[in-house]
Amino acid sequence: MSILVVGSVAFDTVQTPSGRADGVLGGSASYFSVAASFFAPVHLLAVVGEDFNPEHAEIFRERGVDTTALSRVAGKTFRWSGVYGEDLNQRTTLSTELNVFEHFRPALPERLRRIEFLFLANIDPELQSSVLRQMKRPRLVACDTMNFWISGKPRELREMLKEIDILLVNDEEARQIAGEPNTVRAARKILEMGPSSLIVKRGEYGAAMYGNHSHFAVPAYPLMDPVDPTGAGDSFAGGFVGHLARIGTLNDAGIRQALIAGSVMASFCVEDFSLRRFRTLRPEEIRTRQKEFSRMTEFEELV
Amino acid sequence: MSILVVGSVAFDTVQTPSGRADGVLGGSASYFSVAASFFAPVHLLAVVGEDFNPEHAEIFRERGVDTTALSRVAGKTFRWSGVYGEDLNQRTTLSTELNVFEHFRPALPERLRRIEFLFLANIDPELQSSVLRQMKRPRLVACDTMNFWISGKPRELREMLKEIDILLVNDEEARQIAGEPNTVRAARKILEMGPSSLIVKRGEYGAAMYGNHSHFAVPAYPLMDPVDPTGAGDSFAGGFVGHLARIGTLNDAGIRQALIAGSVMASFCVEDFSLRRFRTLRPEEIRTRQKEFSRMTEFEELV
Repeated sequence: MSILVVGSVAFDTVQTPSGRADGVLGGSASYFSVAASFFAPVHLLAVVGEDFNPEHAEIFRERGVDTTALSRVAGKTFRWSGVYGEDLNQRTTLSTELNVFEHFRPALPERLRRIEFLFLANIDPELQSSVLRQMKRPRLVACDTMNFWISGKPRELREMLKEIDILLVNDEEARQIAGEPNTVRAARKILEMGPSSLIVKRGEYGAAMYGNHSHFAVPAYPLMDPVDPTGAGDSFAGGFVGHLARIGTLNDAGIRQALIAGSVMASFCVEDFSLRRFRTLRPEEIRTRQKEFSRMTEFEELV
Repeated sequence: MSILVVGSVAFDTVQTPSGRADGVLGGSASYFSVAASFFAPVHLLAVVGEDFNPEHAEIFRERGVDTTALSRVAGKTFRWSGVYGEDLNQRTTLSTELNVFEHFRPALPERLRRIEFLFLANIDPELQSSVLRQMKRPRLVACDTMNFWISGKPRELREMLKEIDILLVNDEEARQIAGEPNTVRAARKILEMGPSSLIVKRGEYGAAMYGNHSHFAVPAYPLMDPVDPTGAGDSFAGGFVGHLARIGTLNDAGIRQALIAGSVMASFCVEDFSLRRFRTLRPEEIRTRQKEFSRMTEFEELV
């Protein structure tokens, strides 16, 4: 089944202990769509400026991502710049220029309204809701958000949460949404707000799924040379939703596997700057790493 | 097989968002020995002061911990006081009074020299080495340490690490020992220093094992009402070494199960202040929670 992602396409300038990348392709929808493209057909709905040239879109073409709904408008593309500390866990944003993204009002072409799997990347919850209203009963709606919207548009966020199936956020965001310092309690509260599953992304510590009758947690793949964590969360979401779209089932077993697929794609993402690692990534590398997750998490039950 | 633990017995004053406990039983060797006692016979080598009365030792008697090597000397027992923040991850030490612990020079009675499993809790690495020299070839030597010794006695710590089998520390300590910001690289360096396995305790994120040919990671048990994290790491070590002593084998499968046993004991520890939860803990509760770990980590391999 196919996936529609709505989010940002950006130019990032990133500095990490491994080096620096200037004005490279980034943005939540870029990472998501490229990661998801290894699992299912992806349609990208986003906006870029006049400085976005055909060569910037090369990776989307390579990966077969449908960019016919990627509009190019007058102005400059969204730009973000940040720097990471020694252990890659602290990130400082140096600048954010919304540019054309500031006036992004996603309008769905008729042919995208019936896509089965929808991912609402981290954008204004009002826009997320407006996209959802334009869709014709998708089978699965997953979404991301961030502290900026949690504190800035709490009411709009709550409205949006009512309509979705799966929320993907980090620990801190989950606690902030629920106003609850304990993640397990926060998860329970969020499940009462609408989603049937909450996926908590924990960076180098992996990810966890909280459902009404199920809990699952998986560690992150241990990387010796992480280069740039930018986009890891969106790549996780791409692998996660991608796997579900590929198998077409939404049961507990499928969601557990989807967390593995997400973890695998996030681990590849951080191996290089921008989306570079995905340009050389081969399906058998994904399969090999998925198998490694089995080996690093399995144990014989104690009696 | 039996376990010998050498470490501290203390009186703790702890404040957490759930409440406060004053002058309650604590110390690394207390938590370790009580947790391990659910799996194997435990001998406790430690020192207390004249303020340590028979009623303080009640839990050791209840759990069958051998305290004949717990010496009571002139002076006061080690006292520690600390306060935890809202989400229990930040701990501030308010005071540390070493008291009788300052002059602790562990001398092994003859009958304890041939015990098969040795746990050197977090004490001066010189004392850890001196205990090890007094032992007659134990089958397994596991140990803990902390930033205070890593920066204060690096040479003595290195000497000690040469002689042990398993080091149990947290992420930060592992990185500090190796002088390496990446945990995976730090683990590799530590394995070159002597231990054949490194166990990294990650608090609410679980634990991981790094071996020369194996990697294993397990999430923490999701607790809705954690009360006091004090002693969780030592309770983890107690379950971990306890399981290995119980099964008597040290292969990869056993070590994986031991991480589950450790995680289970840590999760019970934080459910109440001090060692209280262990007083009511029943073996079937341990078995049930071990089974829950299987359910929350298992998935069907992706193809």
